[in-house]
Amino acid sequence: MSDGTTTGQDEGTEHVDLLVIGAGSGNTLPHPDHHERRILVADDAPWFGGTCLNVGCIPTKMLVHVADLLRDARDGERLGLRDVTGRVDWRAVRDRVFGRIDEISTSGEEYRRSGEPNIGLVRETVRFVDPRTVRSASGRTIEADRIVVAVGSRPRALPGAPFGAFDGRVHSTDTIMRIDELPRRIAIIGGGVSACEFAAMFSGFGVEVTQLVRSSLLRGYDTELTDRFTAVARDEWDVRTGVSDPEVTAHGDVLRVRAGDETVDVDLVLVAAGRVPNTDRLGSREIGLDHHDDGRLVVDAYQRVLAGGEVVPGLFALGDVDSPHQLKHVANEEARIVRQNLFADDADLVANTLAPVPHAVFTHPQIAVFGRTLDAARAEGLDAFEVVHEYGWTAWGWALEDTTSFVKLVVERGSGALVGAHIMGPDAAILVQPLVTAASLGHSVRGLARAQYWPHPAASEVVENALLRAEEEL
Amino acid sequence: MSDGTTTGQDEGTEHVDLLVIGAGSGNTLPHPDHHERRILVADDAPWFGGTCLNVGCIPTKMLVHVADLLRDARDGERLGLRDVTGRVDWRAVRDRVFGRIDEISTSGEEYRRSGEPNIGLVRETVRFVDPRTVRSASGRTIEADRIVVAVGSRPRALPGAPFGAFDGRVHSTDTIMRIDELPRRIAIIGGGVSACEFAAMFSGFGVEVTQLVRSSLLRGYDTELTDRFTAVARDEWDVRTGVSDPEVTAHGDVLRVRAGDETVDVDLVLVAAGRVPNTDRLGSREIGLDHHDDGRLVVDAYQRVLAGGEVVPGLFALGDVDSPHQLKHVANEEARIVRQNLFADDADLVANTLAPVPHAVFTHPQIAVFGRTLDAARAEGLDAFEVVHEYGWTAWGWALEDTTSFVKLVVERGSGALVGAHIMGPDAAILVQPLVTAASLGHSVRGLARAQYWPHPAASEVVENALLRAEEEL
Repeated sequence: MSDGTTTGQDEGTEHVDLLVIGAGSGNTLPHPDHHERRILVADDAPWFGGTCLNVGCIPTKMLVHVADLLRDARDGERLGLRDVTGRVDWRAVRDRVFGRIDEISTSGEEYRRSGEPNIGLVRETVRFVDPRTVRSASGRTIEADRIVVAVGSRPRALPGAPFGAFDGRVHSTDTIMRIDELPRRIAIIGGGVSACEFAAMFSGFGVEVTQLVRSSLLRGYDTELTDRFTAVARDEWDVRTGVSDPEVTAHGDVLRVRAGDETVDVDLVLVAAGRVPNTDRLGSREIGLDHHDDGRLVVDAYQRVLAGGEVVPGLFALGDVDSPHQLKHVANEEARIVRQNLFADDADLVANTLAPVPHAVFTHPQIAVFGRTLDAARAEGLDAFEVVHEYGWTAWGWALEDTTSFVKLVVERGSGALVGAHIMGPDAAILVQPLVTAASLGHSVRGLARAQYWPHPAASEVVENALLRAEEEL
Repeated sequence: MSDGTTTGQDEGTEHVDLLVIGAGSGNTLPHPDHHERRILVADDAPWFGGTCLNVGCIPTKMLVHVADLLRDARDGERLGLRDVTGRVDWRAVRDRVFGRIDEISTSGEEYRRSGEPNIGLVRETVRFVDPRTVRSASGRTIEADRIVVAVGSRPRALPGAPFGAFDGRVHSTDTIMRIDELPRRIAIIGGGVSACEFAAMFSGFGVEVTQLVRSSLLRGYDTELTDRFTAVARDEWDVRTGVSDPEVTAHGDVLRVRAGDETVDVDLVLVAAGRVPNTDRLGSREIGLDHHDDGRLVVDAYQRVLAGGEVVPGLFALGDVDSPHQLKHVANEEARIVRQNLFADDADLVANTLAPVPHAVFTHPQIAVFGRTLDAARAEGLDAFEVVHEYGWTAWGWALEDTTSFVKLVVERGSGALVGAHIMGPDAAILVQPLVTAASLGHSVRGLARAQYWPHPAASEVVENALLRAEEEL
């Protein structure tokens, strides 16, 4: 059958070898090795290819980059540029970005629908009937020897600011990137990664941004990093911390956001207050699967889903639906683990052990982090210390006339193990990589700076110097 | 004695434990461990602190960065920016850069002159009398148990375009950065690293640049890299290759450069045609030290200078005067080697083995390279292959709308050893580092991409993907 299914004994029940629910990282699972397996991929999103491609990492970074160009040029006045002007043609940027992305998404869907004879596409919501069976919204019943849950997460809704309210002027991160005109003023509710990325982007484009945050920006990050980030952010946009339960009301063209004692009038509201796993849409509680408090599925080291603490045979999960990280590169790694374990004997199972897990925040200034803060390391009983090296202490920092950017390393005293890295500043997302490389290969900070050349006077010298500083403290 | 010398038996001969000739990387040699040694540092340059700080890596990059800001913003039109304007206030940039550098240089000299009681400064040219004795221009004779030659290199002069000619309108890289006004038109003679950096800088600032090159741009680099670089450069400035023996003549305010059939009229000329080691000023041939054909001193793996193929006791060299690399980070590493070996017993000598040696070219687009080209690897008998991954095939490349940038890896087939990396594109100088880290730690490309996370969608994914591609070919 062209959609990869066979109809079994039960009238109307389709049987497949593999059902993948969610076409983000889940869609990377089918492999040439599976050409004799009957496979279905189910996805009910209005787009195809998952959050990252359509409404997440990729379009945001394509937009952020343009905003950074404008901001960097303006900032050049500090360095000796003059009369710098420029503006964004928002529609041109948007249409370029989504022209590219939508085409990838569309051709990805087309390929999945008809590109391989053993694979079919179910373009609707499916819910569990039992751990090997799902039923689709239109009434299809699909039984599968293996099911992979890769349904991801969605923006968290806030009661006082429902998505789509006031003629669509209250946005989620799913919709904000496709607006027709940049607003003059925007309120961004939330202080996490996405909220900070959009705040920097809109601010870079010249929009008046007010960010409303329940506690503080980037809560849970190293406190020196969040303090320094907040200080820089406040130079660029209005940050109001410690405000909760925002309520949006409309007054003609104006949206009024009230939260505690704060009131702000804007043209658009973006609610970017975290994400929730899509397990509620999946019926996973009803069939007894184990869930974390935040709604994520519980998996073991082999990405197998648990129920009552026991492995459910044939049931795997990957990505935001189980991972605490909400990171595309983690979802992809989990997909690789699942692919290896899906049809493997127990003896051949591969555990998911890849560490450390870095991530970048493409806000301004850029941030990259992996591992623990000093407090967290100490709370775990590690005899750890931290060192800081400022960009401004290196030649590249002189070129930038940088006064705010830094690299912080958290190191275990005895072993010299690098247990955390916290970088804020230009190119943080790339600068972190040699630290990831070394830590992943099991190398401590001892001797690491001097085991390799660092091209002078590249930005990476700030990492080299942080490592030297760490060694001095060992 | 406050200048660290004692007067010995011979009337007028000063005796010290250590004489360092050259205050660039040489000036990093004296160490707290040496507090009981009598040390002199000699340097005759008009500036203090060596080429890199005063007329090399650091000020060029501080200038290049500003030019890049302007160019990137203008390039933003491609991405959806509009009405981008801006200009450089050259004097503001120059004075900011050299205000900072000159202060570091001056305070460095002051510290070296009087900061430590055992160390003195000889601020004049010295020449060898014998391998343990030098005489200064003013007639001081200094005998030292150890001498370290760190006299570096200087811009190569061309007979047809003498530095300083036509009222100082023919510049070397030593003088070009301190000009009072940007020229409207400049001719840059040379196709190497410095020439390409200055061409990109002046072009970024809006100067009409004509680059005249004997053979091709960046000769000796990977030919695909040089071809692609030349194509991008030609979109930005006028590149004339295959022209030799330039002759500059003046016609009023105009300088005319003729080379072969090419003629170009400009306001200023920069001759950036390579560098020559300063051994001729040192009298090192006259005392029988061994020299390479290009004038560099011959050293062994311990940085000891040779004469007639034999180690000259107590005589070391470091930096451009012996190194084929002409790189500050290599000079600094050689200084660390010399520091360890200077007063060590033969059994404790440390060899200089650090590899690979990366370097970056801060031109536009940026370039970073280490190791061999495929041709060079094969010429050495390696069973090697190369892979290319384009920036444009990664999400970050989409953000840049990049069509020219790439990562090329040269890999030995059997071992998987990474024998070369050739990167052209934004942030190449940083992107190369995880490859340097892994190669320096002895890790092959086998498993390297998947041994670590690469934060999505950072620019470093182009390196990750190049590594995956290389593994497929193994």
